[in-house]
Amino acid sequence: MVEGLRALFVGRFQPLHLGHLHVLSWCLEFADEVVVVVGSAQESYTLRNPFTVSERLEMIRCSLAEAGLPLDRFRVVPLQDINMNPVWPRYLEVMVPRFHVVVTGNRLVAELFRDYGYPVVEPPFYRRGECSGTRIRELMVRGDDSWRLLVPRCVASYIDRIGGVGRLRRLWGGGRA
Amino acid sequence: MVEGLRALFVGRFQPLHLGHLHVLSWCLEFADEVVVVVGSAQESYTLRNPFTVSERLEMIRCSLAEAGLPLDRFRVVPLQDINMNPVWPRYLEVMVPRFHVVVTGNRLVAELFRDYGYPVVEPPFYRRGECSGTRIRELMVRGDDSWRLLVPRCVASYIDRIGGVGRLRRLWGGGRA
Amino acid sequence: MVEGLRALFVGRFQPLHLGHLHVLSWCLEFADEVVVVVGSAQESYTLRNPFTVSERLEMIRCSLAEAGLPLDRFRVVPLQDINMNPVWPRYLEVMVPRFHVVVTGNRLVAELFRDYGYPVVEPPFYRRGECSGTRIRELMVRGDDSWRLLVPRCVASYIDRIGGVGRLRRLWGGGRA
Amino acid sequence: MVEGLRALFVGRFQPLHLGHLHVLSWCLEFADEVVVVVGSAQESYTLRNPFTVSERLEMIRCSLAEAGLPLDRFRVVPLQDINMNPVWPRYLEVMVPRFHVVVTGNRLVAELFRDYGYPVVEPPFYRRGECSGTRIRELMVRGDDSWRLLVPRCVASYIDRIGGVGRLRRLWGGGRA
Amino acid sequence: MVEGLRALFVGRFQPLHLGHLHVLSWCLEFADEVVVVVGSAQESYTLRNPFTVSERLEMIRCSLAEAGLPLDRFRVVPLQDINMNPVWPRYLEVMVPRFHVVVTGNRLVAELFRDYGYPVVEPPFYRRGECSGTRIRELMVRGDDSWRLLVPRCVASYIDRIGGVGRLRRLWGGGRA
Amino acid sequence: MVEGLRALFVGRFQPLHLGHLHVLSWCLEFADEVVVVVGSAQESYTLRNPFTVSERLEMIRCSLAEAGLPLDRFRVVPLQDINMNPVWPRYLEVMVPRFHVVVTGNRLVAELFRDYGYPVVEPPFYRRGECSGTRIRELMVRGDDSWRLLVPRCVASYIDRIGGVGRLRRLWGGGRA
Repeated sequence: MVEGLRALFVGRFQPLHLGHLHVLSWCLEFADEVVVVVGSAQESYTLRNPFTVSERLEMIRCSLAEAGLPLDRFRVVPLQDINMNPVWPRYLEVMVPRFHVVVTGNRLVAELFRDYGYPVVEPPFYRRGECSGTRIRELMVRGDDSWRLLVPRCVASYIDRIGGVGRLRRLWGGGRA
Repeated sequence: MVEGLRALFVGRFQPLHLGHLHVLSWCLEFADEVVVVVGSAQESYTLRNPFTVSERLEMIRCSLAEAGLPLDRFRVVPLQDINMNPVWPRYLEVMVPRFHVVVTGNRLVAELFRDYGYPVVEPPFYRRGECSGTRIRELMVRGDDSWRLLVPRCVASYIDRIGGVGRLRRLWGGGRA
Repeated sequence: MVEGLRALFVGRFQPLHLGHLHVLSWCLEFADEVVVVVGSAQESYTLRNPFTVSERLEMIRCSLAEAGLPLDRFRVVPLQDINMNPVWPRYLEVMVPRFHVVVTGNRLVAELFRDYGYPVVEPPFYRRGECSGTRIRELMVRGDDSWRLLVPRCVASYIDRIGGVGRLRRLWGGGRA
Repeated sequence: MVEGLRALFVGRFQPLHLGHLHVLSWCLEFADEVVVVVGSAQESYTLRNPFTVSERLEMIRCSLAEAGLPLDRFRVVPLQDINMNPVWPRYLEVMVPRFHVVVTGNRLVAELFRDYGYPVVEPPFYRRGECSGTRIRELMVRGDDSWRLLVPRCVASYIDRIGGVGRLRRLWGGGRA
Repeated sequence: MVEGLRALFVGRFQPLHLGHLHVLSWCLEFADEVVVVVGSAQESYTLRNPFTVSERLEMIRCSLAEAGLPLDRFRVVPLQDINMNPVWPRYLEVMVPRFHVVVTGNRLVAELFRDYGYPVVEPPFYRRGECSGTRIRELMVRGDDSWRLLVPRCVASYIDRIGGVGRLRRLWGGGRA
Repeated sequence: MVEGLRALFVGRFQPLHLGHLHVLSWCLEFADEVVVVVGSAQESYTLRNPFTVSERLEMIRCSLAEAGLPLDRFRVVPLQDINMNPVWPRYLEVMVPRFHVVVTGNRLVAELFRDYGYPVVEPPFYRRGECSGTRIRELMVRGDDSWRLLVPRCVASYIDRIGGVGRLRRLWGGGRA
């Protein structure tokens, strides 16, 4: 671990899954602190972004605690999109705590930060293909309970408590209520 | 009819069709007044939203009059979208006259208002499948005149007067003018 | 009255006062219909714009009824500001029912519509100086009840019912709650 | 302290001062967790809002640590303004972790949350008049070093490190660079 | 050439190709000056809009010079989108130098300006089908170098210099960096 | 003159005056090209920003020509404001042609670009105090014709042609048209 080094990790956490948690934990190997940006903060109640920021912040909090990760080494910041791609890295510099390295598996994010001058690191995959937000939302919509195995236990019970699967399935139903 | 009860009905009216009119009339059976929100007010001159708010307001006005419905029991309010779904019901509370019950066949609208605490009623269908904005716009694009049977008479002649079918067909034509 | 002629009247109605009502009634002398735009729709809970659109729509409705004016000759449309002045008249053309003449005592509105090509008419004053939103809000803040004489009776009781004077006075109080 | 109770505290922290710290610490007496909203997140490099969110987040972090307050009982969330006052409480519900009580000395915030249905508590003053962002910025502009006595020690040295006083004084200088 | 006549040409120039250059040159046959609007100015680093405005302005400048066209008869203005179609022609009147004729092959642009009252001219095609931004970006993504034959020489070398093809291919790669 | 060096000059040009022209000409002494940004592009028809971008672009064009300055060494770009100060220099990098040095007498612009890493040069004054947009607009409002001596001749006659003084005076008149 490099003292004082801060890693930036950007995700939408729709929902937070074991892959996210794996990356967050992996960041602590080299970074002193991790700035976790909850992106597309303005989005929710859609098939692609079913959960609100408020809900996603709860998922992150309980997952870090459940995994025994040190809460005080994570700085979680929700962030609304701005629609001007190459301005985005600068927008982050202004809106989140200072960071030195960008950890991302997203091509656009990688491209934008490299062109802007930051080192970009691709995180190791964790159960590639399985642990993806898209796949988890598909399982939920299909009524396949195996999504529960892909998220931290506290996330599964939080989603139950807020009726998240029902919400997603109703949204998916299409035009009629 | 419950005295003082106000129903909210949200539609895009692209264009207003007999299904809309049927619901508006049905609302009067239980509601004293109907708050009619003309949604996506900022959209027009697209395949999905060909008509301006100005034009849609004329369609609503003439249809209510032609059907002999009492104009003074309808409160028509155009409304621009805000892109933050769970905030939307509160936005409506601030931007339209007070209402007590939400009448909608749209799944997202139903989900948002139920979670926010309003009773949501699904209106009866009128010639299901036929009377839908999507289908009417398709007929127009194809040059099939049977769309005229699915809208109030005054709407058909208003669309003729503003050259609405030609507009839609030209927009549909794709890249070249 | 010129058949088919429509007048546009734009106001913020913070709150609706006897001057507004006088102009609205005066418009009916020459216009068949009056398009009443409730401007700065997004503003409320400020000293300059204490009332929401929802509340302002109620004031307009009850005032027209109380004055015995024909509801069906008024088309009331709330409208959010866009911050690009010379584009504004075009924005209105798209967002409100068609109109032919602009009735306004506001210099900017007059300038914009004249430059855009509409005839602009200045309405007669009614108890000039007294009947102004600014003055009425000042009286409210000072706790001077004479504002009641400057608005329609139903507006005064509506403002009482929603606790409007208290709201304005609390907002005016400054930094501490 | 009420188990599970969460207090909401909204501030701009321009800069964080001893009054803020006093309130944050006072909240822990009755609340289990404090949701700290850093408002007007989009503003910086102005006389009224000299510091960026990134900088304000550092001030909050170091102050909580320096005061020995438990970091894990604070949930800090920056938030951009939306310009539609009565929609604001709902926007917060969606964008920050759930809360039950609102702690604020700001009249508008108090009015909005009371009308929306939350209990609102006015925090005790700490060195009233002295400990205010406005006053601290005035001292900085005047070159009066006594502002250092009104902020936590780590905030003073952080502002030194980023050259905050120079920035403010240059901005204040007016039109010429 | 009609003295004093100004033509408006709107394009996204993603990238500028020989078809654009052909139209710009053709405009000079009848127009004194050409107002060149670089549309969707806010977009870049996407598959459909890979280049920034800054980059597109360089392409236009060097192409006009390389083709020996008179720089002083072109007025190049980048313009961000506004999302209200029939307001768009008015927005252009306010934001770009005065123009009299609209040259466009885009159906929506043609429809909007005709309805607003401008004469609209469809430009002659140049190597139809080949010279299109969509096709050029597809060739780039596929690694097919023949795109170089469809753009001015200086544009090809500018795109090389800024690594434009690599950027596009990386963006196209999908989710992982 | 340094070959290839580009200077950035930002102004609102409300209206363009001899001071602006003096700076633009002075830039050519050391810069190969000057990127002229017409700021606050969205503003017009206000006391502080009476002229549209379209009008300001005409003023710049005719002034450069009248002064015999080489048109092809100036790159004029209108730009709408974004309200996030430290993001602004990055926004310019994306939206205007590349530049190396910033020429400005505005303190905020200087502060933002210095912090972002650009060299900032303060231009020499030209008839300090007299040649300022604020002063010229004041003279116009007062009906004092001496403003004509402070702008290029072609700007004075352009303002006459569009009735600019009348517009400003009517806007200044206050509430009634």
